[in-house]
Amino acid sequence: MLLLDQTKRMILRLEEGKLFQTHKGMIQHDDLIGIPWGSEILSHLGITFTIVDPSLRDVLLEIRRKTQIIFPKDIGYILLRLSVAPGKRVVEAGTGSGALTTAFAWMVGTTGKVISYERREDMLALAKENLNLIGLADRVEFHLADIYEGIEEEDVDAFFLDLPFPQKYLGTVKNTLVNGGVLGCILPTTNQVSELLLALENHGFGIIEVAEIILRFYKPVPARLRPTDRMVSHTGYLVFARSIVVPELPSS
Amino acid sequence: MLLLDQTKRMILRLEEGKLFQTHKGMIQHDDLIGIPWGSEILSHLGITFTIVDPSLRDVLLEIRRKTQIIFPKDIGYILLRLSVAPGKRVVEAGTGSGALTTAFAWMVGTTGKVISYERREDMLALAKENLNLIGLADRVEFHLADIYEGIEEEDVDAFFLDLPFPQKYLGTVKNTLVNGGVLGCILPTTNQVSELLLALENHGFGIIEVAEIILRFYKPVPARLRPTDRMVSHTGYLVFARSIVVPELPSS
Amino acid sequence: MLLLDQTKRMILRLEEGKLFQTHKGMIQHDDLIGIPWGSEILSHLGITFTIVDPSLRDVLLEIRRKTQIIFPKDIGYILLRLSVAPGKRVVEAGTGSGALTTAFAWMVGTTGKVISYERREDMLALAKENLNLIGLADRVEFHLADIYEGIEEEDVDAFFLDLPFPQKYLGTVKNTLVNGGVLGCILPTTNQVSELLLALENHGFGIIEVAEIILRFYKPVPARLRPTDRMVSHTGYLVFARSIVVPELPSS
Amino acid sequence: MLLLDQTKRMILRLEEGKLFQTHKGMIQHDDLIGIPWGSEILSHLGITFTIVDPSLRDVLLEIRRKTQIIFPKDIGYILLRLSVAPGKRVVEAGTGSGALTTAFAWMVGTTGKVISYERREDMLALAKENLNLIGLADRVEFHLADIYEGIEEEDVDAFFLDLPFPQKYLGTVKNTLVNGGVLGCILPTTNQVSELLLALENHGFGIIEVAEIILRFYKPVPARLRPTDRMVSHTGYLVFARSIVVPELPSS
Repeated sequence: MLLLDQTKRMILRLEEGKLFQTHKGMIQHDDLIGIPWGSEILSHLGITFTIVDPSLRDVLLEIRRKTQIIFPKDIGYILLRLSVAPGKRVVEAGTGSGALTTAFAWMVGTTGKVISYERREDMLALAKENLNLIGLADRVEFHLADIYEGIEEEDVDAFFLDLPFPQKYLGTVKNTLVNGGVLGCILPTTNQVSELLLALENHGFGIIEVAEIILRFYKPVPARLRPTDRMVSHTGYLVFARSIVVPELPSS
Repeated sequence: MLLLDQTKRMILRLEEGKLFQTHKGMIQHDDLIGIPWGSEILSHLGITFTIVDPSLRDVLLEIRRKTQIIFPKDIGYILLRLSVAPGKRVVEAGTGSGALTTAFAWMVGTTGKVISYERREDMLALAKENLNLIGLADRVEFHLADIYEGIEEEDVDAFFLDLPFPQKYLGTVKNTLVNGGVLGCILPTTNQVSELLLALENHGFGIIEVAEIILRFYKPVPARLRPTDRMVSHTGYLVFARSIVVPELPSS
Repeated sequence: MLLLDQTKRMILRLEEGKLFQTHKGMIQHDDLIGIPWGSEILSHLGITFTIVDPSLRDVLLEIRRKTQIIFPKDIGYILLRLSVAPGKRVVEAGTGSGALTTAFAWMVGTTGKVISYERREDMLALAKENLNLIGLADRVEFHLADIYEGIEEEDVDAFFLDLPFPQKYLGTVKNTLVNGGVLGCILPTTNQVSELLLALENHGFGIIEVAEIILRFYKPVPARLRPTDRMVSHTGYLVFARSIVVPELPSS
Repeated sequence: MLLLDQTKRMILRLEEGKLFQTHKGMIQHDDLIGIPWGSEILSHLGITFTIVDPSLRDVLLEIRRKTQIIFPKDIGYILLRLSVAPGKRVVEAGTGSGALTTAFAWMVGTTGKVISYERREDMLALAKENLNLIGLADRVEFHLADIYEGIEEEDVDAFFLDLPFPQKYLGTVKNTLVNGGVLGCILPTTNQVSELLLALENHGFGIIEVAEIILRFYKPVPARLRPTDRMVSHTGYLVFARSIVVPELPSS
């Protein structure tokens, strides 16, 4: 697996005898096998490509998708807020194309586990395929299920919901999270954020944070440093909350 | 170690018989020992505190510091760009108060290693103390040294420079990184970015990215959703580049 | 009237024999009378002040206020969207402290007119006082009234609502605006924007725009150029719409 | 002159017998003549167009251009910072396509004057044509000249430079501005800002401000309120300064 880059990123899985074709020219896979990372190579049209090991960010951006994926700028902050780390167990719903699943699997290592729920069979198949391609599928338990009725996991440290009506699943999340555990959600509209906030207060969640992360690129020209002309304005609002122990009222 | 939160975050290390004092009232450590995460407790002034396990974000924000630390919003993206993961070896200079060191150590797990260089003895002592407190010091090799003369590590996957003149150290970075490896830098001013960009081109680095990450919080009030009044405008510009194999010119 | 500036702006109305006092020292008004704009003068503590003619931006920021004023960054864009210009008639409600009123009066000149409605007597008195101080009161017709029952103006080009429930007044606005005329509103929360948008569609308004304007300052240091550390994150969402001619349905 | 809008803006100058053609269908100019602003009309393909009087913002965005124009978001703030108002005299260089010229002419009214300098004959011709079309050409004095050698105007309140090396012209600006007068500049790169800041300090300018204005649009859907997917990231940095009276040193 490798990456060729010249304004565009392309992730390749090398196979002997195969031909890589792009509008910038052709390259024989055989010419790429065995050359060191960081090498530059010319296509038959004379365009320079650089070969590097894809970073996690590259992998996330190049994932095959049927739906909007969660962007690296958001995933980085989600990892910190959910304290994902080697050995951790993390639950997510829905799986989608598997971008966040990939980042979670990357970070929990061989000793951790990602438990991922998805209701759509085609999406789950795509996510499995993506995780297989990246080589991280064995760190993920995929479930074709709606989490509304509850799930079997317990005492989980972190739960992420990438679903349009997260408030419907707060009961399940509450039963699954350890006391004080972290819930994360991503939502595209302000209306959804308001509805979720209202439900959080009524379902035993506290220490709530709503945030958006804006990533702005600059043209890397030393003598003419300036932001790019256009940028992504919005991917989603991030909402984080903690499961709070609500004291039982004494019976009179 | 635990966190009490009510608008402010405070990280405590519990000790029998000790008293936690704040302008919002006092709490006996003994009253906190053994109660479940997510519990609410009242100070002697009747103010509610919630006790939760600190997330990586909380730990980073509460780290003791003598210098400006790198913020979680930036650290999340740095982790993805440097592909930090369980088992990886990462080098950084300078250590500073150890915030980024903490995040790296958190993510590389027990099988990885963070190699951290710092020239100031007082800063290195503080960073060690911080990593010890968090319990991650055994994942870090601390060096009191200037990396200008070169370091002994080789074939490292990722190198991060948090120094005012990163261009001075590109030779060292080049010799330390594996071919195609990732360099990351954070710089507060545009002038520094321009100078670094100029040097990168001349030291065999390519696939350069300059970015800034802006984190905007919202007041979590369902019926009155809106951003906070004020926000952090700037922490630093992030610069990433790859070590490129420059073909040797044939001798005539 | 003049401005002294040294990190802070202060607008003075000069009076013979008076003393200007600040924690940075005292200056005699008599020493300021007659000296040219742009001069530097020392307080008795040796602090330098620069005397300049206040710009419209300075005037707006220094206006006496009991409520949050609309910020210059927003006012500039409002002026363009409402096509305020010499000779134009503009209606606004509510007046508030009179910041937007000032900008409108400034731009319509002696041949135009600002008609400003406010329900609170104390606010209207403050706005009148502010406009008098700036010398623009004769360009404004102040009304102590709730516009809900309708107003007498007709065929107005532009109408601005700075009220918490602008949707309540769309009937009045519709009757007051010329066909195709522009309505502008500013609202702090997303919930208010959603409610207004819903009402606009039902009250014969179209060509709707929702925007926010973010102003980011840089430290003006040539060798260390960078944004300020903190900034204003949010003042309000701007909503603009046009009064649309809705064809009458033929009676059967 | 009128505007038809349905996601796109189009400014028309009506002529009897003419046909308006777009990929959304055709409309006869004759069908548009005499109908009220705010009316909706169908193209022959059944697409709805709304006819409104163009706002200043609309005019600025639809101006014919050979170069990048200054955007409305920036122009609004420039107007406030330069205190442009009915009756004022404002100088600018270079004219470019005439967008800022248009806004200045709009605001100074029939009693004010815009003096605009441009070195390129083709640009000046285009700007004149644009101002003529809008009907504001008589408020502008166009000069085909380089301002480096100085200009004849004196005691001007405000001067705007839209040129790549504004520092070259600070002598001319200083001689033209009234004491305390305002200089405004727009520059695309950080390097240019640094160079200008350095020169300002050495040419008798003070009270310096560097800012950027970011305009973010939202999709106007009441039940799904959210920012647009993409936005303009950067147009230029705005720099403002005041001409300061520098005391002459006494000769010994």
